[in-house]
Amino acid sequence: MREIIAEIVTIGDEILYGQITDTNSQWLAEQVGLLGIKVKRKVSVGDQLEELLTIFAESESRSDIIILTGGLGPTSDDITKPALCQYFQCGLTMDEAVLKHVTEFFEKRGRPMLEINKMQAAIPDVSHVLFNSLGTAPGLWIERNGKVFISLPGVPFEMKEIMNSSGLPKLKTFFQPPSIQHQIIRTIGIGESFLAEKIKGWEEKLPSFVKLAYLPSIGGVKLRLTGFGPELETISKALLEQALAAKEIIGTNVYSLRDIELEKALGELLTENKLTIATAESCTGGAVASILTSVPGSSRYFVGSIVAYSNEVKMKSLGVQATTLQHYGAVSEQTVIEMAEGVRKRVGTDIGISTSGIAGPDGGSPEKPVGTVWLAYSDKHKTITKKLQLGKDRAVNIRFSTMYALNLVRESLSS
Amino acid sequence: MREIIAEIVTIGDEILYGQITDTNSQWLAEQVGLLGIKVKRKVSVGDQLEELLTIFAESESRSDIIILTGGLGPTSDDITKPALCQYFQCGLTMDEAVLKHVTEFFEKRGRPMLEINKMQAAIPDVSHVLFNSLGTAPGLWIERNGKVFISLPGVPFEMKEIMNSSGLPKLKTFFQPPSIQHQIIRTIGIGESFLAEKIKGWEEKLPSFVKLAYLPSIGGVKLRLTGFGPELETISKALLEQALAAKEIIGTNVYSLRDIELEKALGELLTENKLTIATAESCTGGAVASILTSVPGSSRYFVGSIVAYSNEVKMKSLGVQATTLQHYGAVSEQTVIEMAEGVRKRVGTDIGISTSGIAGPDGGSPEKPVGTVWLAYSDKHKTITKKLQLGKDRAVNIRFSTMYALNLVRESLSS
Repeated sequence: MREIIAEIVTIGDEILYGQITDTNSQWLAEQVGLLGIKVKRKVSVGDQLEELLTIFAESESRSDIIILTGGLGPTSDDITKPALCQYFQCGLTMDEAVLKHVTEFFEKRGRPMLEINKMQAAIPDVSHVLFNSLGTAPGLWIERNGKVFISLPGVPFEMKEIMNSSGLPKLKTFFQPPSIQHQIIRTIGIGESFLAEKIKGWEEKLPSFVKLAYLPSIGGVKLRLTGFGPELETISKALLEQALAAKEIIGTNVYSLRDIELEKALGELLTENKLTIATAESCTGGAVASILTSVPGSSRYFVGSIVAYSNEVKMKSLGVQATTLQHYGAVSEQTVIEMAEGVRKRVGTDIGISTSGIAGPDGGSPEKPVGTVWLAYSDKHKTITKKLQLGKDRAVNIRFSTMYALNLVRESLSS
Repeated sequence: MREIIAEIVTIGDEILYGQITDTNSQWLAEQVGLLGIKVKRKVSVGDQLEELLTIFAESESRSDIIILTGGLGPTSDDITKPALCQYFQCGLTMDEAVLKHVTEFFEKRGRPMLEINKMQAAIPDVSHVLFNSLGTAPGLWIERNGKVFISLPGVPFEMKEIMNSSGLPKLKTFFQPPSIQHQIIRTIGIGESFLAEKIKGWEEKLPSFVKLAYLPSIGGVKLRLTGFGPELETISKALLEQALAAKEIIGTNVYSLRDIELEKALGELLTENKLTIATAESCTGGAVASILTSVPGSSRYFVGSIVAYSNEVKMKSLGVQATTLQHYGAVSEQTVIEMAEGVRKRVGTDIGISTSGIAGPDGGSPEKPVGTVWLAYSDKHKTITKKLQLGKDRAVNIRFSTMYALNLVRESLSS
């Protein structure tokens, strides 16, 4: 089967000069990859006509699909459309449907429509419109000799909407890439090399039509199984069987076979068990509450939290004993136990989770160096603590402590 | 003066396929840009020898500086070094200083050093070592016909350390780019187009050796003035004068002339004024406390917070009146006032800041649609409230409310 090759070209000085991070090309690469189309190159160029014409020719010579993002705005530094007209030797035609959409777009917002806004509806003769319901710059689809150029606005949510609603389905129909299926295994609390060692035997016996990728991040290692083949259903079934076998070997470090974040998985677990939760946070400073409430609908299980940075607040709002703080210090097993129990009782929830540590960069001592963090879980029946010894970076320490706190709740509920 | 042109090449399947976000190329583009070197292209390619050789030749033909990241690891899919050897037709030589460093690196960590680790110290004959104090893969510097190849490991903190300690200084010495200086103006609470309208007259009168860039993000618009010229001190002085003039025109929306985040600027303001702060959060769910405590040393002014998602916690922990909640609802001016005053008194701080709103995606009503957010600031002398009408995206609403809450404190302290 012939491989379909795609190339992604981001256009704009602001990306080239490092003024903004390009997230579009990552999303696009992932999405066309999920269709079974291979990205072989990504290129960023500035807002210069010569550069664009050079890139168009280079890309067309080596790829089947050329996806352009950026440079479709109404101002004079947006030159993707003029460049396409010159490259394909064509003119601009006013598209009536797009003009109607753009006119309504300005009417709805009560803003005057200028001549330059109207020109958003003028598209290169050789192109088809990929409708942009969220903005004024339409996406463009141009075919030539079995190859396809797609031109998209640089605004991420507009670009994604266009690709999801018409770009990706059109690519699938046009190129009919080989069937491809994916199965995710999300893990937390186990490093990449330990995980690889643990599943070595399983990995070696994977059928030849299944590929495995390790995708590590600060939130844990994601495993992705990809299956190729003629029959979608057979592949899906085989991938799920493999994932279940891997889960059996990895154990409780697997928190989902769907591609969801830990906070969402934990939210589902709490909802299913009809349990409520509150946090008592020192070193994480509200980050655990913040990530729990980032999930839509979290008010079903999240009630409230107390961020207790000072010892006074730990005593007054959480009921931590003065003697505990004196004897053991704020960063200690005894203190996090009283914090977790205190918040559970005072906020009135089923579960309390607490954090206390030295996030850094200052504040460490020989006995308790920067990166020392204590966590405690408390419910009516039990209390579980965990000590972490992290590094020197404040942001990383807070992020790790937050993820480990979520995971401590998940593990305590599953045990 | 001749323009020095750089090109950045990121190497690795994981970036090409969209499995990880490439942040290296943004950082590198920004850093060489600050030296006065222009980035004209960025390219990503996979771990394939043929692709690398093609890119090396293309890049060398059009750029003065070619910066490569990735593919320097010890395993067989890391092919940057073999590709460089083939391209420059040279062999590998063991570098004794690097070998000593790698050996010590493993000894310190008590890990066995394998033959593949030892090979990290073998470098192409034509290259000079750019020492990597944080890892085992050294950076490489190769000169040919007045052009330079720099090869760097893909791990961001190692890459940055190598460039900061030797790569960037060496580039500066080798190419002697024109003197360049920057001056930042950080703003918050004013949109890009309003800002542009406001400073139009000032912008038009900028001297010809000063360029202005608008860098918008969710945290506000950053203005960057860049000055070119023979005398560094004269440029610095002129840029600062222009920045002060712009600040005069823009007014209180300017929060700093240094390139610092709002939470850091606010922390400095609180520290200078010897004031303490507590937050009472509903819709932001701890995000305001979390961003305040992300700043090192924030325990000087941050004492604690109460996240009150449920009405019970708003009453019990913050002292909001049941009648207030009944008559006006949780998302109301009256409720946020009682929350801000309540947290200030109960936690015992100088300032209380509160948030209550409908973050979405559900929970809206015709009178209070998704995106309705109330904020209140309270100190001993005054109470100030602010109403926001945001959009439908939960994450964006939380992030905006958080930034506006910080800004409400800043404005209230400055007024």
